[in-house]
Amino acid sequence: MNWVILAPIAAVVSILFGGYLFYRVYQAPVGTKEAARVQRAISEGANAYLRILYLALVIVAAILAIILIFLFGIWTAVAYVFGALCSALAGYFGMQVALMANAKSATAAQEGLTKAFPLAFSAGGVMGMAVVGLAALGMSVLYLIFEDPEIILGFSFGASSLALLAKAGGGIYTKTADIGADLVGKVELTLPEDDPRNPAVIADNVGDNVGDVAGMGGDIFDSYVASAVAVMILGAALHAGDAELYPIGYVTLPILFAAGGILASIVGMFFVRTSEGENPTRALNMGTYATTIVFAILSLGIVFLLNLSMAVFWANIAGLIAGIVIGMTTDYYTSIDGQAVKNTAEASQTGTAINILTGFSYGLLSIVPPIIGIAGATVIAYFVAQGMGISGLYGISIAAVGMLSVTGMIVSSDAYGPIVDNAQGIAEMSGMDPEVIAVCAQMDAAGNTAKAITKGFAIGAAGLTVLALFAAYAETVGLTSLDLLNPIVIVGMFLGAMMPPVFSAMLILSVGRNAFKMIEEIRRQVREIPGLLEGTADPDYASCVRIASQGALWELIGPGLLAFLAPLGVGFVLGPRALGGFLGGSIFVGVIFALFMANSGGLWDNAKKYIEDGALGGPGSEEHKAAVVGDTVGDPFKDTAGPSINTLITVMSLIATVFGPVISRYALPVVFGWFS
Amino acid sequence: MNWVILAPIAAVVSILFGGYLFYRVYQAPVGTKEAARVQRAISEGANAYLRILYLALVIVAAILAIILIFLFGIWTAVAYVFGALCSALAGYFGMQVALMANAKSATAAQEGLTKAFPLAFSAGGVMGMAVVGLAALGMSVLYLIFEDPEIILGFSFGASSLALLAKAGGGIYTKTADIGADLVGKVELTLPEDDPRNPAVIADNVGDNVGDVAGMGGDIFDSYVASAVAVMILGAALHAGDAELYPIGYVTLPILFAAGGILASIVGMFFVRTSEGENPTRALNMGTYATTIVFAILSLGIVFLLNLSMAVFWANIAGLIAGIVIGMTTDYYTSIDGQAVKNTAEASQTGTAINILTGFSYGLLSIVPPIIGIAGATVIAYFVAQGMGISGLYGISIAAVGMLSVTGMIVSSDAYGPIVDNAQGIAEMSGMDPEVIAVCAQMDAAGNTAKAITKGFAIGAAGLTVLALFAAYAETVGLTSLDLLNPIVIVGMFLGAMMPPVFSAMLILSVGRNAFKMIEEIRRQVREIPGLLEGTADPDYASCVRIASQGALWELIGPGLLAFLAPLGVGFVLGPRALGGFLGGSIFVGVIFALFMANSGGLWDNAKKYIEDGALGGPGSEEHKAAVVGDTVGDPFKDTAGPSINTLITVMSLIATVFGPVISRYALPVVFGWFS
Repeated sequence: MNWVILAPIAAVVSILFGGYLFYRVYQAPVGTKEAARVQRAISEGANAYLRILYLALVIVAAILAIILIFLFGIWTAVAYVFGALCSALAGYFGMQVALMANAKSATAAQEGLTKAFPLAFSAGGVMGMAVVGLAALGMSVLYLIFEDPEIILGFSFGASSLALLAKAGGGIYTKTADIGADLVGKVELTLPEDDPRNPAVIADNVGDNVGDVAGMGGDIFDSYVASAVAVMILGAALHAGDAELYPIGYVTLPILFAAGGILASIVGMFFVRTSEGENPTRALNMGTYATTIVFAILSLGIVFLLNLSMAVFWANIAGLIAGIVIGMTTDYYTSIDGQAVKNTAEASQTGTAINILTGFSYGLLSIVPPIIGIAGATVIAYFVAQGMGISGLYGISIAAVGMLSVTGMIVSSDAYGPIVDNAQGIAEMSGMDPEVIAVCAQMDAAGNTAKAITKGFAIGAAGLTVLALFAAYAETVGLTSLDLLNPIVIVGMFLGAMMPPVFSAMLILSVGRNAFKMIEEIRRQVREIPGLLEGTADPDYASCVRIASQGALWELIGPGLLAFLAPLGVGFVLGPRALGGFLGGSIFVGVIFALFMANSGGLWDNAKKYIEDGALGGPGSEEHKAAVVGDTVGDPFKDTAGPSINTLITVMSLIATVFGPVISRYALPVVFGWFS
Repeated sequence: MNWVILAPIAAVVSILFGGYLFYRVYQAPVGTKEAARVQRAISEGANAYLRILYLALVIVAAILAIILIFLFGIWTAVAYVFGALCSALAGYFGMQVALMANAKSATAAQEGLTKAFPLAFSAGGVMGMAVVGLAALGMSVLYLIFEDPEIILGFSFGASSLALLAKAGGGIYTKTADIGADLVGKVELTLPEDDPRNPAVIADNVGDNVGDVAGMGGDIFDSYVASAVAVMILGAALHAGDAELYPIGYVTLPILFAAGGILASIVGMFFVRTSEGENPTRALNMGTYATTIVFAILSLGIVFLLNLSMAVFWANIAGLIAGIVIGMTTDYYTSIDGQAVKNTAEASQTGTAINILTGFSYGLLSIVPPIIGIAGATVIAYFVAQGMGISGLYGISIAAVGMLSVTGMIVSSDAYGPIVDNAQGIAEMSGMDPEVIAVCAQMDAAGNTAKAITKGFAIGAAGLTVLALFAAYAETVGLTSLDLLNPIVIVGMFLGAMMPPVFSAMLILSVGRNAFKMIEEIRRQVREIPGLLEGTADPDYASCVRIASQGALWELIGPGLLAFLAPLGVGFVLGPRALGGFLGGSIFVGVIFALFMANSGGLWDNAKKYIEDGALGGPGSEEHKAAVVGDTVGDPFKDTAGPSINTLITVMSLIATVFGPVISRYALPVVFGWFS
């Protein structure tokens, strides 16, 4: 019996469950006319951005599809386009529901937390279910038709192309708008956050959706599929070598794990319940723990079903535990109750520079627990697998898949974050009561924690995934070892190690340039539109939205080309061995930069909130001003560069693996016999 | 004939020439009573610091010497102590002369640039000659007695222990004082730079000497000796394997290169001449170029004399060229005329945060040319050596030695920097004429450029040196390959990659904590000493000096223990293969962090100067305030963490190599047969 058939069934269940959650959101009332008006403006802005994002995607996908047709035939190209499409659809659905839920959550908050929280979480759940449903559907259908991991590699590459555009573009968009709105609105004009007189306020709200919902969804979709593909490639090589020791279940395992993860996430969602006055973070954590436990049990069944070594189960548990450790430690470093945040806030007493230096330093220190988590999962998964008689590298790839199995639940909590963030914004912009705003604020605080945990999780998962892809790449090009004492590997590592910092720098400079344009535009509107500051005339929201969108995609060209061309250049000019070193260098440095940037950004943000909550002189004090600068420095760290590095290292690893067969045959050193 | 005898002769010549330069400085007049008084205060502060630094060194050295006696016998321990002593002596002499030259250069500036510049440069030259003279003397005498590279490895480890204390401690000291003096003095009290009413002004001037003179001298002494030792270890292994192909000259080469480098540096110093009104940077660059060319010629002679492959010559040239490329590109990114500095200054128009983000990003981009330089030198040296029939890894180690051969000249220009910086301070504090201050400012600007170039050079040299040490470590523990697909190597790399960021974070947090104490003390003095701000009462300089000194050494304990214990812990618990990965990870990430931090700090500093020179609203404008914050953020980047990372990666590589034989026998995985 081909158990793979369970996966499309689970995928359909997932999509149906997502449809049910959508219906719950759909039938909730929008509320006041004013709220509906604000929501419409945000929706229009977000959809305008999505249109040009998808246009850019069509161009990129068309070029790459043509290349893939020539190199690998029509079906790889079809799988590629299908992958980009599935990921784009998941992002599209998720974002539409998020947009719809913004105002509805604010309205529901008038009836209290127990009304508003389930609504907002259901809306996040649509995104979660769409990501895992469409990913599982795409992979399983392709596998049932072709039974070839190479085709699914094409699917993964498609998803990754979309993720790079969505994540980096969304990251530039959201921070352009946020910084612009803050620096002119809050600092120069001293308007409160989310004030409707601020011309960039709609762009700022759009940014939360395109960056945190669509972007993060694309990113995790990407890791989710890539980790599965790495297992399938390694499994297929093992199966080809020794079909008795490695039955076909070693290849189909990640597809069934995906099915199990979907069921576990649906069960987990029923544990997400809160009561009036309770902190919603607890509810979200309960959901994650429940999902993890249910999945652990299901995975044991799958391992028996496919007749695999118990080592697979234990490697999977190592990944799951590492995921939880990474999430918890991220929470420790960025939590508003933690010592790192307090010390950073207190450093503001000595001025802006010390606030920045302190947050920067804690961000660097915060990499320790997650890296030990990743390293621990790697070594445990490897030696457990080897000790129980199967391939150690295969064990590592299972740890990655295990960690990502709970994706459905993780994405749901994550997408909940920007929804309640915007709900609070809409509540303020449409003039709701202070108690309603307080409920929204409570939901928002839980959303910030959820976002921080998800980011740590996404980076940890990407770290393990690229290690698995690294092994898959070595398998594809036939490298049995990669010697660090070989100078061509050293050179590859140096070049790869430069990529994350250079890519980050390009994105941050893009945000700076684009925010500059945004600031000029806001200042122009304040100058030229009479009655704007008095609230008697509406600002021109659309022109701010346009600047953020166009700038984001325009600025994406440089970093995007770098991500696609650098691995190909290294591979073809310096050969497959150098490309192996290149991937290695980019992984180690990439994980460090991604973690450091995400966490330092998060802790600067909370140091500011800590002061805004009344500590150290409170809002308006010199300490607060210093903390606001720290937060602004952290904005592109945590929402643009940091999370995009995940996608960068996944994309580069996939490119190397996809083009591996061509590179190992036509690279200059191979053709001319250099470096041998 | 044993040509090694030439080295102690050259070393003595170097020390004599240094004595001559010292005499020139000694006989110059101190000038006004006021200047002499300021100078005495600085000297007292610096010597107070040196006393406790050397006390700390004695404790560390005693502990390590005892361990070395037990493990490797008395002579390794003696060599270790001798290494620490030579490096300490070089730092001591260099700093005494620098202290003496501060006021004398200011006084000489009254007679114009052509009087003051040679005096200041001569004083720097004492440090340069002391470093290369004592290093060459120590290495050559030990070699002549023992003819054993392992003994010289002990010498190198001693120098490295001192370097870690001097560089990191000096770095914390100088920035504690600088930030304290700036934040209270310049920002809160709006005193000008170097105002004698500022209680931290003497500590600030002391800091320039202990950080930039003694610290940097120790750092380069360390790299200089370590690169030579790496060549000797690799050469000895080759010689032992095939004495016909590799005559003993492959072992003694770096000692003779040191001798050649001394002569080249002395010749080069005669090219450092400037005329009235000319930019002294040109003179310093002329000296460097002349030294490089003379050394290239001498190195050809040495290769013939020792009857070595011409590959050695070419590998050496690759190193020399890489050194120049790294220096030039550092100059490009941090120069006040460059686009990066201008863009960072202009970013201040949008506020502090964008200034910081822009400088941060350019700092990240600035790593590209030097890393390509290091990678290029690595690959060229390797393949030239291999192509001409000798060991490729030996070729890489020669590139490192080649790059460092011009150390005499480089350290001289570098030590010139803080001397003229302080000369300007003394000119201002003792109330000299504006024209005199202008001459001092011109010399100081050239000093800043020299400092930036030297930092790039020091990091590049450290990068190549640790690659050579990496090969020497592999040789010592008998690793013929280090496979990146081996999970224990991966785990080692993850752990090693964390070291530079964690070490940096610890140092920066130390500066923050210590600066906080300093700020409190300054505020206390302003509050409690009547007449201080009116200039009628003297501040208590000594208490600020004490806070900076004690804090610096106290804060050093954590990072120091980390640097010593982490490689030993990884080696003994995870084994020699993991330790290899650990070194690899620390090298790639370390080079990136060191370059990024040194360069971004330099460019923030110059962005501030660019505005102070009148651009964008000039001093006192909002843009200036933003740039001052950027400069303060950059201070510990460029003067504490960045340059200390060099020393960190050298120390860790040396520890691994020194303890390699013990680790490869007694590590847990070796004893229990794990991970095999």
